[in-house]
Amino acid sequence: MLSKNKIKEIRKLHLAKYRHEQQCFIAEGPKLFEELLQSDFIILEAFSTTPFDLPPHRANLPLQLISASELESISLLSSPNQVFAIVQTPPSNIIYPEKDELILALDNIQDPGNLGTIIRIADWFGIHKLVCAPQTADRFNPKVVQSTMGAILRTQMCYTPLNDYFIKIKDTHLIYGALLEGQNIYETPLSKGGVILIGNESKGINQDLMPYISKQIRIPSYNASNMESLNAAVATGIICAEFRRQNSN
Amino acid sequence: MLSKNKIKEIRKLHLAKYRHEQQCFIAEGPKLFEELLQSDFIILEAFSTTPFDLPPHRANLPLQLISASELESISLLSSPNQVFAIVQTPPSNIIYPEKDELILALDNIQDPGNLGTIIRIADWFGIHKLVCAPQTADRFNPKVVQSTMGAILRTQMCYTPLNDYFIKIKDTHLIYGALLEGQNIYETPLSKGGVILIGNESKGINQDLMPYISKQIRIPSYNASNMESLNAAVATGIICAEFRRQNSN
Repeated sequence: MLSKNKIKEIRKLHLAKYRHEQQCFIAEGPKLFEELLQSDFIILEAFSTTPFDLPPHRANLPLQLISASELESISLLSSPNQVFAIVQTPPSNIIYPEKDELILALDNIQDPGNLGTIIRIADWFGIHKLVCAPQTADRFNPKVVQSTMGAILRTQMCYTPLNDYFIKIKDTHLIYGALLEGQNIYETPLSKGGVILIGNESKGINQDLMPYISKQIRIPSYNASNMESLNAAVATGIICAEFRRQNSN
Repeated sequence: MLSKNKIKEIRKLHLAKYRHEQQCFIAEGPKLFEELLQSDFIILEAFSTTPFDLPPHRANLPLQLISASELESISLLSSPNQVFAIVQTPPSNIIYPEKDELILALDNIQDPGNLGTIIRIADWFGIHKLVCAPQTADRFNPKVVQSTMGAILRTQMCYTPLNDYFIKIKDTHLIYGALLEGQNIYETPLSKGGVILIGNESKGINQDLMPYISKQIRIPSYNASNMESLNAAVATGIICAEFRRQNSN
């Protein structure tokens, strides 16, 4: 049974401010929880309406059985789902690509739904590192965590100004920028490794970053009257797929 | 100036029920309105905070100047944007692909955001026809209309049971089903024309439709531990891109 004070304390974590202060994030639902149990993430506390078989290395996990109505009072979901976990935010060290490793750089993707979809795409294509400009949506925003499911647990991410970052890697890695005026991606040889830079949903790629782009690429349109661009996540998916296709042998 | 009664009447159209009854949909914002003016859609009424230069064939358009606060009282947007139009829903005749024409079939895509993104993708890749199973989100849902921008005006769509539809076209057109267990899309010769069938976000393609699928295709994953599927709209984008790539010469 949860005390009123405990419920109040947990509900504070619905606000980004308190999650940042306490360096934790929320993960809900049995599927995500099972993946958490298998991961290296530190689970600070968990609350469940049903018992869980904990793996040996999680034997000391503070897992408390609660009622459905208690779960409802702490959950962020419109349909609360069995288990609610509070997880320690891992340190956000700057990450670098290995030789021949393909990574993503996000220039301020602002919609958590788009960020979640992009993390799922990265995971699908075996891309394990995402470098984000500081204004990119928070990876531990509950909407992102829930929408990516396990992918968030398998993806390393950091937030850092991209110009400083590109200065450090530009001599060893190609930086591909997705731009409407770029070269047709299907007529461009794409390297196995490198950085795919994706711009903000409405503003695209920041002008300051242009000097660091080694190759400008675009997805060709088959519609002359189309003046819009593709959704940022869809464009990311198509570009990642083509990098993998060209280098699959 | 809008009377209280007029505002009440317009606000009724915020509900799907009244839009269906009156066979109309709502389109907002100057960019979409400009595209509407150039289209064949019948604009029943429009309300704007600024005057518009109407093209000759729209000279008789009932366009009424209103105040910003009046716009706010009738708009569906959190930030109302200059113009609000009530547009007649076009007849939804069953549409068929021409020889060698590529079209999409959607098996109950339920999220309006996903449907909007898919319509934008279709438009980008020059796919002008979408056939939807009856439970697919309404194309004239305001979220869909706003998110697709002009693309909705350039795309023919109909809602019909897909098994009946496939019976009619299966002898003349290949039907490609996107399935996790399909053949690697990059090792499958894709025809210029045909139908790309996309399944529901969580349930995938209905079992009843399986017998009509000529080729099962999948986007290869590069991550063995990934048990999730790609977002339906992202998968649609990657598949459409590959159809166009293989047939671009």
